Amino acid sequence: MQTIAWDDQKEAVTLIDQRMLPDTPDLLLCNTVDELIHAIRTLAVRGAPAIGVAAAFGVVLSFKTSTTIEEALKKCEELKNARPTAVNLQWAVERVLAAVEDCESVGEARERSLDLAKRMAEEDVEVNRAIGKHGAKLFKDGERVLTHCNAGRLACVDWGTALGVIRSCFEEGKHVEVVACETRPLNQGSRITAWELMEDKIPVTLITDSSAAYLMQRGMIDKVIVGADRIVKDAVFNKIGTYSHAVNAKHHGIPFYVAAPMSTFDLNHTEADIKVEERDGDELRYFKGIKNAPDGVDVLNFAFDATPLELVSAIVTEEGVIYPPF
Amino acid sequence: MQTIAWDDQKEAVTLIDQRMLPDTPDLLLCNTVDELIHAIRTLAVRGAPAIGVAAAFGVVLSFKTSTTIEEALKKCEELKNARPTAVNLQWAVERVLAAVEDCESVGEARERSLDLAKRMAEEDVEVNRAIGKHGAKLFKDGERVLTHCNAGRLACVDWGTALGVIRSCFEEGKHVEVVACETRPLNQGSRITAWELMEDKIPVTLITDSSAAYLMQRGMIDKVIVGADRIVKDAVFNKIGTYSHAVNAKHHGIPFYVAAPMSTFDLNHTEADIKVEERDGDELRYFKGIKNAPDGVDVLNFAFDATPLELVSAIVTEEGVIYPPF
Repeated sequence: MQTIAWDDQKEAVTLIDQRMLPDTPDLLLCNTVDELIHAIRTLAVRGAPAIGVAAAFGVVLSFKTSTTIEEALKKCEELKNARPTAVNLQWAVERVLAAVEDCESVGEARERSLDLAKRMAEEDVEVNRAIGKHGAKLFKDGERVLTHCNAGRLACVDWGTALGVIRSCFEEGKHVEVVACETRPLNQGSRITAWELMEDKIPVTLITDSSAAYLMQRGMIDKVIVGADRIVKDAVFNKIGTYSHAVNAKHHGIPFYVAAPMSTFDLNHTEADIKVEERDGDELRYFKGIKNAPDGVDVLNFAFDATPLELVSAIVTEEGVIYPPF
Repeated sequence: MQTIAWDDQKEAVTLIDQRMLPDTPDLLLCNTVDELIHAIRTLAVRGAPAIGVAAAFGVVLSFKTSTTIEEALKKCEELKNARPTAVNLQWAVERVLAAVEDCESVGEARERSLDLAKRMAEEDVEVNRAIGKHGAKLFKDGERVLTHCNAGRLACVDWGTALGVIRSCFEEGKHVEVVACETRPLNQGSRITAWELMEDKIPVTLITDSSAAYLMQRGMIDKVIVGADRIVKDAVFNKIGTYSHAVNAKHHGIPFYVAAPMSTFDLNHTEADIKVEERDGDELRYFKGIKNAPDGVDVLNFAFDATPLELVSAIVTEEGVIYPPF
């Protein structure tokens, strides 16, 4: 099944609630854009491409619950700012709004935005399939591939970006092995990446984020592949921890690949322009309500980091593999 | 109070049970060497210097519960192998056994080993005070210092090695700020380092292990200081994650210091000779019994890593600061 879908009968978005993983996930129904914004902020839906498609449906929900176009546009502005770092969210909202610009009623805008959002969901899968096909050329049978966070099926509508490349490797008969970093503090690696790879019977070994460098030193990692939340002129923004892996990959002479759709590129900006989301320190202070640190300890909890393009060996997109200088 | 002490009345070792932190810790009483081995293996007592002193008292417990010297020596052999990587454990057991070599009865050996173990506990504090004094010279008022795991009061009998240096900075009026890495999978940074620094009102900010590199990139870390479990001819063994910080410190031109007593040096060996402990994968699969990964996922859980001496800017010992080439 797909991560995000439109329910025609209920006129609502259904999402796989990723907060439940690694337990079997529930489906979450969002009837309003406020419910969807809450789902994005609490990471029920996460991963740049998935957030993009969810936001496209969010525009539909805005028109559904608004009585005027102005009211809907105001809601869409709020939706665009649900999370600051991933560019696909803004990109998707703007794309859908551009398509309904000349609509004269909310009813018309709602209908037209729904058509486009559904097409964007389909496109997302096609794009990931293309990324997978191009990316698979970079890997050989038997290689051990480190990944961070979850750039898989559950970060998209289906197939995945970084893990889409892994899936395409298997489709072509290349049996690579995945080393999944836990990805603190929300453990998308252990909860989501390990889960979806095991579902597909792709070999996966879970490690702490801080083990990656040591495994590289011991010759246990052949390549690194990660997704991206935003690619600007000089850097790749991705889940916190990505930059450390990139520095370590460079130090050990290991290729470091990024897999992302063209919609992740934001070439009007540089690293310095982008706000990196700081999330609540309780994500470190507690684990599902259990104390992991002293009460009231100061926490610095950046959700993303920026990897300079000099550390990136190649970027895999649906249009092909891009090599430096980018 | 001290982390480890001998209870003369009960003829047993009392330990601060570090598994309870960040909740107020209980005291754990070990009446037999088997109880002490269990405490070491389950990390009720951890940190190379603390394990060393606990093991010295473990020799006393062996003589206490054995009817022959041979029986006690067999127990001591088991004690020496309770954990494989830290050298202080073996060093302490051998030191005490050497001192009782000519004893003719278990009673005599017990008495003499108790005297020495008590002296070693006192020495440990003196040694840490000396490390602190030498190390404090490396820091300036206002600097932000990254540390990993816990090389503090609770990793020793008192004061600490890496955190002992921080305490000595404060004693000399240098107000440094500590950035503590969580230290997955057992969270000694968030549970123990943050706790003991807050108890002492030393400013501490908690981060995920994977944030360290990004903070270095943003100019938020001036220096790194860690402890050590074993220093061999070509490398420093310390908690998993240390190596990654060292590579990142090098990449960013940030000094990387190790603080450890002379008893941590094992100059008869090189990195290749030392077994790195692999611990149970359930440490990642669960957090205090709560699922953090799919059932049965493969896990690679090295407890330590090895940092080549080329990446170390200085080693702080009780005898002074050693600079490269070491």
